[in-house]
Order: sequence, then structure tokens, then C-alpha cells
Amino acid sequence: MRIIDSVREMQQQADDWRRQGRRIVLVPTMGFLHEGHLALMRKALTLGDVTVVSVFVNPTQFGPGEDFERYPRDPERDFRMIEEVGVDAVFCPSAEAMYPQGYQTFVEVTEVSGPLCGERRPGHFRGVATVVAKLFNIVKPHAAVFGEKDFQQLVVIRRMVGDLNMDVEVVGHPTVREADGLAMSSRNIYLSEDERRDALKLSQALKEAAELVDAGERRAEVILERVRDVLQSGRHIRIDYAELREPDSLRARSRIDGPTLLALAAHVGKARLIDNRVLNPA
Amino acid sequence: MRIIDSVREMQQQADDWRRQGRRIVLVPTMGFLHEGHLALMRKALTLGDVTVVSVFVNPTQFGPGEDFERYPRDPERDFRMIEEVGVDAVFCPSAEAMYPQGYQTFVEVTEVSGPLCGERRPGHFRGVATVVAKLFNIVKPHAAVFGEKDFQQLVVIRRMVGDLNMDVEVVGHPTVREADGLAMSSRNIYLSEDERRDALKLSQALKEAAELVDAGERRAEVILERVRDVLQSGRHIRIDYAELREPDSLRARSRIDGPTLLALAAHVGKARLIDNRVLNPA
Repeated sequence: MRIIDSVREMQQQADDWRRQGRRIVLVPTMGFLHEGHLALMRKALTLGDVTVVSVFVNPTQFGPGEDFERYPRDPERDFRMIEEVGVDAVFCPSAEAMYPQGYQTFVEVTEVSGPLCGERRPGHFRGVATVVAKLFNIVKPHAAVFGEKDFQQLVVIRRMVGDLNMDVEVVGHPTVREADGLAMSSRNIYLSEDERRDALKLSQALKEAAELVDAGERRAEVILERVRDVLQSGRHIRIDYAELREPDSLRARSRIDGPTLLALAAHVGKARLIDNRVLNPA
Repeated sequence: MRIIDSVREMQQQADDWRRQGRRIVLVPTMGFLHEGHLALMRKALTLGDVTVVSVFVNPTQFGPGEDFERYPRDPERDFRMIEEVGVDAVFCPSAEAMYPQGYQTFVEVTEVSGPLCGERRPGHFRGVATVVAKLFNIVKPHAAVFGEKDFQQLVVIRRMVGDLNMDVEVVGHPTVREADGLAMSSRNIYLSEDERRDALKLSQALKEAAELVDAGERRAEVILERVRDVLQSGRHIRIDYAELREPDSLRARSRIDGPTLLALAAHVGKARLIDNRVLNPA
């Protein structure tokens, strides 16, 4: 497995692969990998000829006071896990290589970046769109795989790729969960035992909402009330948002008249966790 | 010569060329071509194996009240001129193909888009950066040629390409002038005979400034005073700006201590004209 930290070297490797007619698939990550990332990589392996995993904790998608500095990092362990899956190359640039002195260009996806995490984390999706645009220009993938746990991120990236005519196939992968339902996240490491128990309420709330819809409930306020009740039964949970939205445009939905995204964010101890589920009325 | 109006078809043609190992060179234009554009195309022919000229009057770089609707257009004449030069393909999409319903992604180059035309035309360089990013993703060029008449545009594009790691060589081409010094521009067609005579003051002012610097003058205010005097001697001229700036960062310069951009913009009749020259102290 090649470990590449230079932008120029990565672009040359990508050019070589493309000249050989090989299909490149990228899995962008911020490292500190878990089973969810490994599932994205295994998916990527089935989609092309060479797989690249980027490991880069992107400073521009963290706001002031967020957890950029303490975001968990363990590159040696990451590289071992990536190699074991059978990935061809890791791209792991420094922050200085990605954002040199005088850096000043940003990609903004205006509407779908507005609500949900966009409202609570100003500039977050600008940072995400910008770094993904850069990674696409560096790794030159034919396809890229993203987890659906970060649903809004996936919506933003799909929109950017379509709007800017990037010739990259964007592939979403279902959220990978622990046996008890907790969505895998590098930030779960922040949780104490008690907090981890409360964190389960997110996936429980999603499940109860789906059951309500299955039972015929269509009113957003009734579903959201149940969701909030489930979440608030956890002592360590502070709800950030619980919202129902159209899954492509992320416009608010007052009735479940078609596939509808239920998106949750909550502070549990020091961690801010998100989870989501698309509710499908029969 | 191929005339392509479909984004998908252009991308497929670009993929084919790239698979054949051919070097693609793009000349982006807004059509209504003149000798300046033809010079860019001839330059492009020397830089690669296939040359593509895009013809697209980009609505997102015009502000409200600007001349988007009345911007001169003559595609049939453009195509004839392009074919005569020996270009391989024209890419001429519709505005609807480039900006479909729901379009919402923009590329912003923050600092160098700020002064000069950026200050007078809010959103202009956002529109320029966005459409050039799109054209690069559609035509997939190895190199692209831009005229130095639009000096700030060239600075914005170079910065975007570097910051976003676009693997495209950006080539600037010196401004092409009429025999009497007037910088070629599609907008010169707006000028009456009297106005055209006054429009000459722009290149005259640049020349007098260069002569002052050659004579040893280094003070910005002295040079700009001369420039304004020359411009204001035209009855039909209203100065928009006359400024001295560092050529890469576009930061203001109070002394000519190194290569310095003298950038001019002026309204002459219905036309807003720009011109510039880099002053080089001995």
C-alpha cells in the first residue's frame, strides 16, 4: 500500500492510473477509523480498480470552540486497518499542504447547507465542500463513497458535484451501527459508560418514529413530539435539533407524504452526536 | 470542427482525448470574438494537441443593471472565425444547461476578488470563478488561456486553481490592441466615433504612467494624478477607478518599489471599459 502525503505525487499517481484505464475510487475520512469506515472501503473495492483512502482532519470544517484540537487521531492504527482491507493508497496531507499561507478559495452550496447542522455550525459545510472539491482534484476519482450517517454532508456533496459538473459518481453507504443500534462515530470515544447508554436514545427515537409512520401517523408534530420524549428521557442528553425534511432539498416537511428525512443532533456529555433515518410511508 | 452544446457530450469527448494521451487546451470566451480572442486561440494551438473554445455569455458574472441582455452576440460569425483558426471544438452550452433549476453552488476567491472590479461589481468574480470551475470540469483541459486585459480575472483564476488544486496550467496572454492602442474588447462596439476617440485615453494614460516610472517617479499619488488628468481630458469619460496594486495579491501600493499593476476602469458612453499595465521600475 502506498502512503502519499504530497499533493503533486498523488496527482501524478492518479494520472498514471487513469492512463492505464484504471477506475479510481476515493473514500475521504478524517481518520480514527471504525467499522463504518471499513464498510465504506469494502464498498469502494467493489466499485473500481484502485481504491484511495484520504485521512485528513480538515480544519476548515470545524468552527471556533469545536473539537478540532481534541478530535481523536491515530494514523499508525488507521494505516494498518486500511492496508488490511486491501486499499491501494492512503493520501494523508498536512494541513499546511492543503491550506498554505494566503489560502482564500471556498466552495459554497448555499441552500442545502442552510438548515440542520448548517444552522448550528456556520461555515461547516463550506469547509466540507471545499475540502472535498480539493480531494477530488488531487485524487481524481471516478467515484467516491460517503456514509449516510452524515446525511446532510452527502446532500451537499451531491449538489456540489452536480452543480459544478464534477465528473465523479457519488455513492452513499448506509450507516453502520453497533449491535445495540448506536451509529458508529469516531466521536463515540468521548462518551462515558452512562453517556453511551443515553446515546442509544438517538437510534431508539429514530426507530420509534419509523414505527409511528408504519402505524399510519403522518403529522410531523406528533412524530417529533415522540422523538423528543425519547431523547429527553436520557439524563445526559441535550437536544440540538430534531427535524423532518425532504431528503434532496432538505426543505422542512410538516407531513410525511413521501420519503422524509428524520435528522437528529444531540449533545451527550462532551460529544455532539448526529443520526438520521429516512421514513418511508407505505 | 465539432460544435458541442451538451455538457455530457463534451465530457465524453474530453475523456476520449485524454485516453488517447492528447493534451487539451481551453480558451474560455463570451463570444462576439475579436482579434484578441483569435490571438488566445493561436497561442492555445501551440500549447497542446486539441484546442477547445467555449462560447458562453455567463449570466452569473453580470450584476443587476449590467449589460447581460444587450451583451453583443453573433454565434454564427464566432463559429466561422474559430474554425478558420484551426480549433478542434466549440463548446457552447445554453444557460439552462449550465444553471438548471435549483442551482446553488458557487466558488469564491475571497481576497483578490475584493478590490477594483470586485468592489464595483459585487458577485462578478464569484460568477467568473464558478463558471471557470464548471468549464474546467466539463472540458477537462490540461491548460487554459486567458487574456491579460482582464488582469484581475486572471489573478482570481490563478488563485482558485492553486487553492483548489485544479490540475490545469493557466496561461496569460498579453492584451491585444488596435493600431492606435485601444485594448480590444467586445464592448468597444458600444462606442460612438467620439466616444471611441475618448476611449483611447485609457491606453494613453497607461503609457504616460510607464514613462513617469521610467523617468524615476516612484510615488503612487503623483502617477495616479497624471493618469486621472489624462483620463479626465476626455469629455465622454467618467473614471470608475485608477489604482496601483501588487500584481499577485492585488494589495494597494503607495510606491512603485517593484512590478506594480496600474489598473483602470472608466465609463465611456454606454460602455464600461477596463485596461491595465504592469509598471516595472528599472
